[in-house]
Amino acid sequence: MDTELHNPPTAEEILQAAARIRPYVNRTPVITSSSLNRITGAELFFKCENFQKVGAFKARGATNAVFALEESMTGNGVATHSSGNHAQALSWAASLRNLPAYVVMPDNSSPVKINAVRGYGGNITFCKPTLEAREETLRDVIAATGAIEIHPYDNLHIIAGQATAAAELLEDYPDLDYLLVPVGGGGLLSGTALSTHYFSPRTRVIAAEPEQANDAWQSFTQRKFVPALHPDTMADGLRTSLGNYTFPIILHHVNNIVTVSEESIARAMRLVWERMKILIETSSAVPVAALTEGKMDVKGKQVGIILSGGNVDLDHLPW
Amino acid sequence: MDTELHNPPTAEEILQAAARIRPYVNRTPVITSSSLNRITGAELFFKCENFQKVGAFKARGATNAVFALEESMTGNGVATHSSGNHAQALSWAASLRNLPAYVVMPDNSSPVKINAVRGYGGNITFCKPTLEAREETLRDVIAATGAIEIHPYDNLHIIAGQATAAAELLEDYPDLDYLLVPVGGGGLLSGTALSTHYFSPRTRVIAAEPEQANDAWQSFTQRKFVPALHPDTMADGLRTSLGNYTFPIILHHVNNIVTVSEESIARAMRLVWERMKILIETSSAVPVAALTEGKMDVKGKQVGIILSGGNVDLDHLPW
Repeated sequence: MDTELHNPPTAEEILQAAARIRPYVNRTPVITSSSLNRITGAELFFKCENFQKVGAFKARGATNAVFALEESMTGNGVATHSSGNHAQALSWAASLRNLPAYVVMPDNSSPVKINAVRGYGGNITFCKPTLEAREETLRDVIAATGAIEIHPYDNLHIIAGQATAAAELLEDYPDLDYLLVPVGGGGLLSGTALSTHYFSPRTRVIAAEPEQANDAWQSFTQRKFVPALHPDTMADGLRTSLGNYTFPIILHHVNNIVTVSEESIARAMRLVWERMKILIETSSAVPVAALTEGKMDVKGKQVGIILSGGNVDLDHLPW
Repeated sequence: MDTELHNPPTAEEILQAAARIRPYVNRTPVITSSSLNRITGAELFFKCENFQKVGAFKARGATNAVFALEESMTGNGVATHSSGNHAQALSWAASLRNLPAYVVMPDNSSPVKINAVRGYGGNITFCKPTLEAREETLRDVIAATGAIEIHPYDNLHIIAGQATAAAELLEDYPDLDYLLVPVGGGGLLSGTALSTHYFSPRTRVIAAEPEQANDAWQSFTQRKFVPALHPDTMADGLRTSLGNYTFPIILHHVNNIVTVSEESIARAMRLVWERMKILIETSSAVPVAALTEGKMDVKGKQVGIILSGGNVDLDHLPW
């Protein structure tokens, strides 16, 4: 995979994305917690994408990608493969523009997620739970429908859309020393790194990743692409590999990647629920764990954290 | 029990309480949910006391009661019996004024609650889990310490403090048709009814109560005090009887009381968690259940709901 940076979204494209999605998505609140400030010794600012439409930041990128399509290209709808929040987000965003959405999902997806995609009007095609089966089935669906593929993260409109979360946070809190986000495929991370580079260059961007799915950390430290071969983490949004667009942006604009254990993810998730009284999903707990487990020295610093989503199966909690 | 109204807190006393507690408690946010609006057909405004200090509205009354004490009376601290949020709230409020707090708790209280009271510096005396044992032990503690009793709800400063939640909500949303709150001992309900009477007299105040702890509903409909003899509800904050101060205020200023089943409480709690991504405790779910189970016709109306608290034992969820 190429590590050179080729035409990533510009500051203007991120601002265009923000204007494009504004009528549809929430400007999510930023909340603080005296309890978590005390525990970490820092001043924390939580950007609550768990309160975003469809319960995750994915609504931003999907809306931007769907509404950036030329009218002439939209006739056959949009398509993707995803077992997670992007499937819901794309179905929802397509419905806003009255387009069909075709979603390829592994046949072991949870009923909660299948019902959510159906609830937003997505047309589901099931496949075996392997990357090969997902990609092959998606190719078949696209051949049959003529729909346009919207990749969950390796798409410049998706990256520009996800970048708007950090842009809002940095507008509200321009003095952040650090900005922490989780990394899976790198859509949120690369967008965050670009927004920070353009709008608050002194802020350091740190990614947090599960130890048991540390392909981004490996790729970052070795400066060459390492795929996620056997990710084994409860943070189900972070099991994917970096992409052709996201990896070079991360190499150029992210300051560091830290990894956290499964136990610390569950502890951090429970801490946020108990002290802050908000639901966050496992992936959101990963950057919190980096702070609460002392993976970074943030004493006396202002730290932004993007809580990426709040879609949780309440029948299967990690404690 | 007397049903005549004797000098309930005035509008001025509620405003004094608001000014007194302002440096210490949160002006909690009001949030909306397009999903719950769709389900109920109403426009709902949730006053989030789950985001209050100590995780419940009880911080308001306790702070008002502690700071309303004359300096000369505070030397020996404050005391109460409570197995719930008031125990935490009083310990916390007393610590703000550097006073000792003595809390009598039943010996079957959950470790979570015991640790929370200790965490706020409360001195706990355990007793058998009966009302008689609690009252007798409290008398002994007060005899030994000289502390001043702060009753969880049957205290005019407590009522005035709890009234500030509705006062804030009505200030933010002056056009509410209905205001819903749960009822246990009636501190929150009587305060809410007074604030509404003074500040938004056209708004109708409706209390929601578990069917399996329907003493307030019985007292209200029979217009004579009926104690809570065998309350058997998961809404552990709502198992208490009305008080000498709270009952007459409720008789004079509450428009109706509706009751809801245990199943509907659990369903409403889960619905709020899943759709709104916030933690509420069982007692908070009771007024939500009144709406989602169609106990009231609120179609097209503006409805305020006070979410009373968010203190939940995550190891024991009702589903």
